[in-house]
Amino acid sequence: MKIIIDCMGGDNAPLEILKGVIDAKAELGGDYLLVGHREIMETVAKENGLDISGFEILHAETVVTMEDDSMAFRDKKNSSLTLSLRALANGDGDVLVSCSNTGALFAGASLTVRRIKGVHRAALAAILPFNPPVLLLDCGANVTVQPDFLPQFATMGSAYMKALYGLENPRVGLLNNGSEEHKGTPLQIEAYRLLKNCPDINFVGNVEGNQVAFNACDVLVTDGFTGNVFLKSLEGMGKMFSSRMKGIFYKSILTKLAALAVKKPFMEFKKNMDAKEHGGSPILGLRRPVIKAHGSSDGRAFKNAIRQATRFAESGATATIEEYLGTAAVAAPVGKE
Amino acid sequence: MKIIIDCMGGDNAPLEILKGVIDAKAELGGDYLLVGHREIMETVAKENGLDISGFEILHAETVVTMEDDSMAFRDKKNSSLTLSLRALANGDGDVLVSCSNTGALFAGASLTVRRIKGVHRAALAAILPFNPPVLLLDCGANVTVQPDFLPQFATMGSAYMKALYGLENPRVGLLNNGSEEHKGTPLQIEAYRLLKNCPDINFVGNVEGNQVAFNACDVLVTDGFTGNVFLKSLEGMGKMFSSRMKGIFYKSILTKLAALAVKKPFMEFKKNMDAKEHGGSPILGLRRPVIKAHGSSDGRAFKNAIRQATRFAESGATATIEEYLGTAAVAAPVGKE
Repeated sequence: MKIIIDCMGGDNAPLEILKGVIDAKAELGGDYLLVGHREIMETVAKENGLDISGFEILHAETVVTMEDDSMAFRDKKNSSLTLSLRALANGDGDVLVSCSNTGALFAGASLTVRRIKGVHRAALAAILPFNPPVLLLDCGANVTVQPDFLPQFATMGSAYMKALYGLENPRVGLLNNGSEEHKGTPLQIEAYRLLKNCPDINFVGNVEGNQVAFNACDVLVTDGFTGNVFLKSLEGMGKMFSSRMKGIFYKSILTKLAALAVKKPFMEFKKNMDAKEHGGSPILGLRRPVIKAHGSSDGRAFKNAIRQATRFAESGATATIEEYLGTAAVAAPVGKE
Repeated sequence: MKIIIDCMGGDNAPLEILKGVIDAKAELGGDYLLVGHREIMETVAKENGLDISGFEILHAETVVTMEDDSMAFRDKKNSSLTLSLRALANGDGDVLVSCSNTGALFAGASLTVRRIKGVHRAALAAILPFNPPVLLLDCGANVTVQPDFLPQFATMGSAYMKALYGLENPRVGLLNNGSEEHKGTPLQIEAYRLLKNCPDINFVGNVEGNQVAFNACDVLVTDGFTGNVFLKSLEGMGKMFSSRMKGIFYKSILTKLAALAVKKPFMEFKKNMDAKEHGGSPILGLRRPVIKAHGSSDGRAFKNAIRQATRFAESGATATIEEYLGTAAVAAPVGKE
């Protein structure tokens, strides 16, 4: 297993990324290809007492920033992102982890690593940290979608949850504004029909925003706009609750004592809900696996993203998607691929 | 002030509605017109020891159910909903509160009470129970919208927050998947342009799902599909946190003691977040005010909905909307109204 690391993307590059890689190597093993500006990485490592002398480095002169647009991977040919993607496409590694800007990573991955034949669009997925977890896709990469993208998202998400979480027959829900079949915009109405008739998935119907946390489905499909708004609303509510809890517990000596009594289960709950524990977001539908780590990842979050990348690469999810959508590709309308 | 009450709509009609009315009358005063099946209401009141002998009743033979479609108000001419709407349209009361099915109430109100001249679509709004509160519109009635509906939603929402919450210059945000001007689907991109150029509102730009709880805006505009998914996701997260907290506090003697120490601020927080405390959802843009109370309202929730209805009717929000959108109507494309 060789893991390609884009060392220069995100808010905390390269320091936190290098920390994450060193910890991951110690904890999980594996081979690594570090892509980034050699001198900068070596200087930062030295200044922070990190030893990266044992790692293979692919030098990249420039970097795609958070402000660059989605075609930056093409304009900045010598960026760490572009060279990482090319290395993955060439088979110089099994999986890529990057904190780079989502738009550029997604577009670059779709066009450089390329989609599996028959896949209309790759999808950016997110593990929602509920009990049990729910895979949401698309969560922001495909802002607008066609109805026939959604059965593919469902198939890809099911393959991922089956391969990584051991679910026999993942339940697929369509995020909608009501439970009845006719609910939603024309997109949801047509997607419902297609999902209902898709033989490869276990479609359980529409799922409303207030049902997702309560075990209504394992895979939740939607367009990237709605998915992004939904994902961020969960994030915001989590933050809001956390800050209110702090306010309540830090009020007096008595409440601080109370906080001590429930500290352990609280921290466990907080850890469960912490996106940084769950690593990154898989991009599904590509010929080789890519994990998008959060732009603000620290060393711990990046290490967890590497763990998820390793599991993704080992899981066989990509082969399963290829198998299912290879079949689907036969029935796909001419001109779609 | 005379409040028209649709006594037969919702899951707990007429018992909980009658309870709410009796409590509201005692607490807030006001005159009431109870619309519903006279015999059923009198029997239920008697069986439950409630005295409704002092209330004016308008008999309605039938009821619009939760399963009826949105044109039910027209098909069931003698339903409590239809007669309530007609009473409001005729000026037999100042405001209507109903738990009836949202689709039928919204369509019936738009066509019977009618929109203010110049308003493209009435909007269903919801108070998000943050600190400070945020008015979200549309939250489900207009599943699909045109971009030019959104500046009107913004104007109506601003008038409501100004009149009912005393805000001088309510900040309007557009719910979107990023902060930059070009973010979103074609709907958001065009709506952004229109909102930016709307002289009557204080537009503060795009607001992401994770910013809404943190005082990013006072009025949040979006299409009804996204608004509904967003609103329900907040509701689901609230429920989830609440149930996890219970699990944590009910674990042992020690944690139960801890719960005692923080019980008061916890209950306060829970009360703040409880939709039932905030009454119902105003429908904005109609000639006379209508409050949609939740279908599952109990007596307390219904009483709070009546309180909100009274405030809405007294606030002058309707006149303000008429004033602003009367101007806008001049510039509205021919054929829209």
